[in-house]
Amino acid sequence: MDVKKELARRAEIVNAALDKLLPDARAYPPVIHEAMRYSVFAGGKRLRPVLVLASAEAVRGSAEAVLPAACAIEILHTYSLIHDDLPAMDDDDLRRGKPTCHKVYGEAVAILAGDALLTTAFAILAGLPQSGRVTPERALQVTAEVAAAAGTNGLIGGQVVDLISSAADIDAQVLQYIHTHKTGALYRAAVRTGAILSGAGAEQLQALTLYAENLGLAFQIVDDILDVAGDERMLGKPVGSDAKNKKATYPALYGMAAAREKARQAGEGALAALQGFGDEAAFLRELVNFVLTREH
Amino acid sequence: MDVKKELARRAEIVNAALDKLLPDARAYPPVIHEAMRYSVFAGGKRLRPVLVLASAEAVRGSAEAVLPAACAIEILHTYSLIHDDLPAMDDDDLRRGKPTCHKVYGEAVAILAGDALLTTAFAILAGLPQSGRVTPERALQVTAEVAAAAGTNGLIGGQVVDLISSAADIDAQVLQYIHTHKTGALYRAAVRTGAILSGAGAEQLQALTLYAENLGLAFQIVDDILDVAGDERMLGKPVGSDAKNKKATYPALYGMAAAREKARQAGEGALAALQGFGDEAAFLRELVNFVLTREH
Repeated sequence: MDVKKELARRAEIVNAALDKLLPDARAYPPVIHEAMRYSVFAGGKRLRPVLVLASAEAVRGSAEAVLPAACAIEILHTYSLIHDDLPAMDDDDLRRGKPTCHKVYGEAVAILAGDALLTTAFAILAGLPQSGRVTPERALQVTAEVAAAAGTNGLIGGQVVDLISSAADIDAQVLQYIHTHKTGALYRAAVRTGAILSGAGAEQLQALTLYAENLGLAFQIVDDILDVAGDERMLGKPVGSDAKNKKATYPALYGMAAAREKARQAGEGALAALQGFGDEAAFLRELVNFVLTREH
Repeated sequence: MDVKKELARRAEIVNAALDKLLPDARAYPPVIHEAMRYSVFAGGKRLRPVLVLASAEAVRGSAEAVLPAACAIEILHTYSLIHDDLPAMDDDDLRRGKPTCHKVYGEAVAILAGDALLTTAFAILAGLPQSGRVTPERALQVTAEVAAAAGTNGLIGGQVVDLISSAADIDAQVLQYIHTHKTGALYRAAVRTGAILSGAGAEQLQALTLYAENLGLAFQIVDDILDVAGDERMLGKPVGSDAKNKKATYPALYGMAAAREKARQAGEGALAALQGFGDEAAFLRELVNFVLTREH
């Protein structure tokens, strides 16, 4: 399997679905819909939505049936990027090599575009049963799951601790909190969403949750390593920007060699969690390798 | 009926429920939970959640059963106030006579507190069936309803048009768009939520929707009038601040006498919509008078 090709193929499916789910850019008032679409289509590997699809497949569910939920999670992820980039937050001018939302549309519209994407994500999740392929019970369960992952005991909690800790020395415990919440929670929710909507059993769900937690950790450590070692052009943001902002990173805390080893171990943990699965989890396995070896 | 007393009594019920539903202020990371609670408990008449309760009662439903949904709508309303007050938006230092969230906690935490409240609102709505008194179908229906009211064809759309129109001359059509979306949509969703969760029939729902649209309009016109004529101490924000910011208002567009007449007509429209209801809608009727005669 050529994982990059497979990932790109699935990302295209997600992109087409996002295009259909998001309001038309010309819908009144156009500026907000343009800003939403600008950020959603500013690039990105679509790892989170692809995980939703792959997780559904791993429990012999339908990728097509979970596609709107996958899009909701990517839309929610985009909201978090827009707000993270704001001047009051990380104050980033570039994201994936392109001007950030507030640089193009101004701060006010960027704040509202983030708000609107978050709201759209929940509108999509609440509307899942409209397809006739998702029960109201499961739709509600994933809506609650995603809301928890996005809240103050998830994504927002991680962002808050990252924010208030940036000027201070950060120990291993705080670093782990930031990463499991700011990044890990949504990876976990993505994998669980695909499984729950497909009617996964309790054991399968537990195994996939463990997979997601390890994959999310591996992803974040590699992200930290790439920030130190990466190439500015490839990464699309200034190299060393985390160090400049005194952000906590694995290489800063453990050193580069130990950080690489931790990423490798997390990858092994992810693969081990899939032991009870057969070929239907092949793509989930390939994604581990992709995350560990990615260069941007 | 002493409507002010009744409103205050119900507001207390809402406040107690909000206190139970929101995360503890000491929960990690405390700053975000303190900021969320600061803004939710910074005052306010709780008109939206009280409308949810009153609407349930009007269709012989249980106010207690819809109380969490009522709180979700107030929490969502609070998010919109926090973000509206930000420096990049209306740049308000005071709200209900108290320093705004970003003046107390800084811009970054205020943005995140708004995000967290919006997310919490959806978490509560998705969790409604946990009480055993709301079916998954109805919970999903109100989640979709609230998401639509909060999105770019509702609250956010109104805020965007208000924002981009503030320096320009505003005609009657734009003014109506701003008010029906920025304020009206959530009033409408509040009334519909109480009715839907209580199993209202299609005719009842239609009548209550018409009530809500008229009440929301009356509320907004009176708000505009109070901004011009009101007393700074009573209102808790600088009088004439809308005019200073070149915001669109009814008195500015139609003159004070015609604005008062429009508010009165909207109030009559709200009462007329309730003609098919008996005593169970008494409080909804009283609220019309309250909205028309309020002084802050």
